[in-house]
Amino acid sequence: MARHAIGLDFGTNSCRALLVDVSTGRELADHIFPYPSGDAGIIIDSSDPNLARQNPADYLLGIETAIKGAIQKGKEADPKFSCESIIGIGVDTTGSSPMPVDEFGQALCFREKLKNNPAAMVWLWKDHTSYKEAAQITELASAIRPQYLSKIGGIYSSEWWWSKILRCKNTAKEVYDAAASWVEICDWIPAVLTGELSPGKLKRSVCAAGHKAMFNRAWQGLPDQEFLDKLSPGLGSLRDRLYDTAYTADQRAGLLSAEWAQRLGLSPSTAVAVGAFDAHMGAVGAGIVPGRLVKIIGTSTCDIMIHPNNEALQDIPGVCGIVDGSVMDGYYGIEAGQSGVGDIFLWFVNNLVPEKYGRTQAEQFASLEKACATLRPGESGLLALDWNNGNRTILVDARLSGLLIGQSLHTQPHEIYRALLESTGFGALAIIDRIEEYGVPVKEVVNCGGLAVKNPLLMQIYADITGRPMKISRSEQAPALGAAVFAAVAAGVEAGGYGSIHAAQNAMVGFGKEYRPIPENHKIYRQLYALYGQLYNGFGTRRWSGRMDNVMKKLLDIRDEVRVSGLDSTYSMEK
Amino acid sequence: MARHAIGLDFGTNSCRALLVDVSTGRELADHIFPYPSGDAGIIIDSSDPNLARQNPADYLLGIETAIKGAIQKGKEADPKFSCESIIGIGVDTTGSSPMPVDEFGQALCFREKLKNNPAAMVWLWKDHTSYKEAAQITELASAIRPQYLSKIGGIYSSEWWWSKILRCKNTAKEVYDAAASWVEICDWIPAVLTGELSPGKLKRSVCAAGHKAMFNRAWQGLPDQEFLDKLSPGLGSLRDRLYDTAYTADQRAGLLSAEWAQRLGLSPSTAVAVGAFDAHMGAVGAGIVPGRLVKIIGTSTCDIMIHPNNEALQDIPGVCGIVDGSVMDGYYGIEAGQSGVGDIFLWFVNNLVPEKYGRTQAEQFASLEKACATLRPGESGLLALDWNNGNRTILVDARLSGLLIGQSLHTQPHEIYRALLESTGFGALAIIDRIEEYGVPVKEVVNCGGLAVKNPLLMQIYADITGRPMKISRSEQAPALGAAVFAAVAAGVEAGGYGSIHAAQNAMVGFGKEYRPIPENHKIYRQLYALYGQLYNGFGTRRWSGRMDNVMKKLLDIRDEVRVSGLDSTYSMEK
Repeated sequence: MARHAIGLDFGTNSCRALLVDVSTGRELADHIFPYPSGDAGIIIDSSDPNLARQNPADYLLGIETAIKGAIQKGKEADPKFSCESIIGIGVDTTGSSPMPVDEFGQALCFREKLKNNPAAMVWLWKDHTSYKEAAQITELASAIRPQYLSKIGGIYSSEWWWSKILRCKNTAKEVYDAAASWVEICDWIPAVLTGELSPGKLKRSVCAAGHKAMFNRAWQGLPDQEFLDKLSPGLGSLRDRLYDTAYTADQRAGLLSAEWAQRLGLSPSTAVAVGAFDAHMGAVGAGIVPGRLVKIIGTSTCDIMIHPNNEALQDIPGVCGIVDGSVMDGYYGIEAGQSGVGDIFLWFVNNLVPEKYGRTQAEQFASLEKACATLRPGESGLLALDWNNGNRTILVDARLSGLLIGQSLHTQPHEIYRALLESTGFGALAIIDRIEEYGVPVKEVVNCGGLAVKNPLLMQIYADITGRPMKISRSEQAPALGAAVFAAVAAGVEAGGYGSIHAAQNAMVGFGKEYRPIPENHKIYRQLYALYGQLYNGFGTRRWSGRMDNVMKKLLDIRDEVRVSGLDSTYSMEK
Repeated sequence: MARHAIGLDFGTNSCRALLVDVSTGRELADHIFPYPSGDAGIIIDSSDPNLARQNPADYLLGIETAIKGAIQKGKEADPKFSCESIIGIGVDTTGSSPMPVDEFGQALCFREKLKNNPAAMVWLWKDHTSYKEAAQITELASAIRPQYLSKIGGIYSSEWWWSKILRCKNTAKEVYDAAASWVEICDWIPAVLTGELSPGKLKRSVCAAGHKAMFNRAWQGLPDQEFLDKLSPGLGSLRDRLYDTAYTADQRAGLLSAEWAQRLGLSPSTAVAVGAFDAHMGAVGAGIVPGRLVKIIGTSTCDIMIHPNNEALQDIPGVCGIVDGSVMDGYYGIEAGQSGVGDIFLWFVNNLVPEKYGRTQAEQFASLEKACATLRPGESGLLALDWNNGNRTILVDARLSGLLIGQSLHTQPHEIYRALLESTGFGALAIIDRIEEYGVPVKEVVNCGGLAVKNPLLMQIYADITGRPMKISRSEQAPALGAAVFAAVAAGVEAGGYGSIHAAQNAMVGFGKEYRPIPENHKIYRQLYALYGQLYNGFGTRRWSGRMDNVMKKLLDIRDEVRVSGLDSTYSMEK
């Protein structure tokens, strides 16, 4: 009899349940649930563009709707499929997306009194209201606990746990005081499913803890009380209401609670794996091995590498997370990422593309891509920085912004669109360069996420810019597949699952297309990348000083040369 | 009996005839003729965005259509009006817009063989194909004839006469060889009207000659033959086929030819004034006096000042034209300008504004302006450089490009639109600062051109940025009115005209609205202008060297401060 696992993936705008055959990795069915609250699932504040929150009630509705939907579709796809074959559920979420909870582990915003208070909701990863708090944490840790920063790239981010909690304490005292504890969403969802919501007992993910909460065995878990109290008097007392142990996601959080088993029509013996962040589970679902960078491309991008934990690995400045076990047991997980990728393309299409490119967003994307594909690298004379949402890795700075240079009176929307695609490719290469510089070779890249599949031009541009082959994950839902892989391991061999992540990956994971770099394009992109680097260092770092008057002229020179040479930009794709 | 004059204004996309009552300045009627050729009157080349040419046949059709149209409308507007009351015609045009002609003064592109050859057409001012030739002229003159550069700001431009002619020689030998002479359009139109087209006899404008062809009495007219031959062997022989005398526009080019008198239904005793560039005649039509800068705002902008020629005036680096008599006899004319103003706004609206802002261009401009007007200075966090079409004054460099900085994922089209409006205001202030720095005070500004009348927000922004009152010219057609002023003087007192430009201005010119700077806005703009200056010097000059990492952060700081403070941005307009 076939065995199945469910991967539950909680994204920025929706959640998804993926039903996977454990023996083959075949994806029987999936179902998406768009979050009903706010603006595409995000609670925003027109007076503060930094604010981004989420309503946890959306998640509860999402678990039920998405799993039931996937099961229903699974039954339609395969008449032999039945719910008894489901041996485990794995959960991945965005992060760091912490939420204040009461002593029972329930969301504070479920209370009548705090119902419409954004501070009592989930502080979504992309909430940047706490940029000042992040700077304060960096400053204090630099001064008195430099070891805290050494594994997170040297700069604490406003996207992370402590910045957000401190911001809440500073600006929403009533919420902070009402919180018995705080929980990452990747820990809260498995806790909900197992019924073990008590903040002191629910199992916390080492992935979330290590990356975002500065949790490390070297200093007995979370940052010490003295440090927290120096950050803000009284914050130290929260430490004891958090956790002192963290788990890898191949561990079980528990079994499905009777209540949820009944609601979902599943067996109460279904294993629920410890949660982790989407990128880390996505890396597993995309087939991560040493030397292979996995790039999960969505609204933002996460880049994941692994490195055996029995080999030396130095700290990598600006690379935000090096955590033992964050991706899988036995390896350091290395996490990097770009704060805006798909989000930047969406912003452009939603705001700055006229209807002559199509009436719907999908039509506009299609005709922009078509128009773009006829352009050669450098032909538009444009260059952009991919910082509309800040820079997560290497600069770790939310107080940055977009930049576009090279506009003439003839510049067309699709030229700007291509410059934005390219800017994210240059950003990707900057990260690869940094990781290699510190002794971790990046031989090839596996891309996953919607854009990797839907945007061949983007993949070709990435291959041309980085000079490396771009593989595409066979699964279009690598994070959900990764979650299913962890579910299969958490369920165990005796239930028809696996004894290790490697074994589960071998059975369940594969690759699709591959894009090869075109040498002539790579040559032009080397020149553009040098200019990108100049703008990057100039606008993004304190150490750069110099002249900028070469930039516009060099862009025009490259443009003129490309227009004369008539280089071809056909795709170089292999199946 | 009333006397009338006609101002003929040849712009970048159309020409216009304005029928003016000589005693009062009342504008009886005007008629516009959009040039039928090319893209909105401009011959372009999709493979070379620098190319911009014009078909002189459009001008001939334009003279007839516009004048007849204005006369027809004049008769409808005032039954007492008759053609006999027209005493003169004045002509202003874009420039430097030279054209190769045969020995009869006819356009070479009228010949069958060269009909579709863009090199045989008018090389429009905004044609930048000759940027390399311009650099070569600057280099050679710096080395052996520094005096040639001292009155034109130190850098010769690709917008000017010799660059374009040299470019033609370098790239279209068959056209260059076929040219008996070259003529500025502002000289060719009066020549056409008088019938005296012979290149050796038609009267050349000192305005065009002095600014663009480096004509100066101090070196006996045009640059010497040795210099021209060093630029390009053989170019020197063209000198004798050009001119050695140049005239102010209060002089007569001649009387209307019998042929044109008949075609237009006018008297053959109608005076035709010597031509000049649109900005210089516009300055007269807008009421120029010492201390008052006249800003003619169109696709690009010209800034004109005058300074008595019996007072010392030092050279102003980067200010492209200081010519005795170019605006009016007895004064140095000082010409500066911005290469792209209305053109940048048009580019943005035509390319990057979705239909939710309106279905027509006019609707889009209206709703952008409405949405913009609710924004406070600094609120968008955006800053732009106004260099989409290069920088004419102070940098005198066509090899520059646009720059936009500060984009987030929330940036809206109207925010970018406002940043573009502001960028042209900062560019305007940079010019004012430079002129004042060299001893010519700029106490107030008179604005004319369509944007000055149609865009109150732009005018308020200019007042707020520059900290100076912005007057609006009473006439919406200052260049055409200026041409009519010159026509009235060229006709002479005996015909019912005037004996001096001042006398004609006193009778015919006035002001409309005035915008006063709002101190709080000016304060914020001082901060933004400092950042604009940093980008300006950084990307535009060789002498700047330094850090750029403050720019994005300072923009965010200003944005955050403005959003918190809730400053009001109401207009401060006085009638």
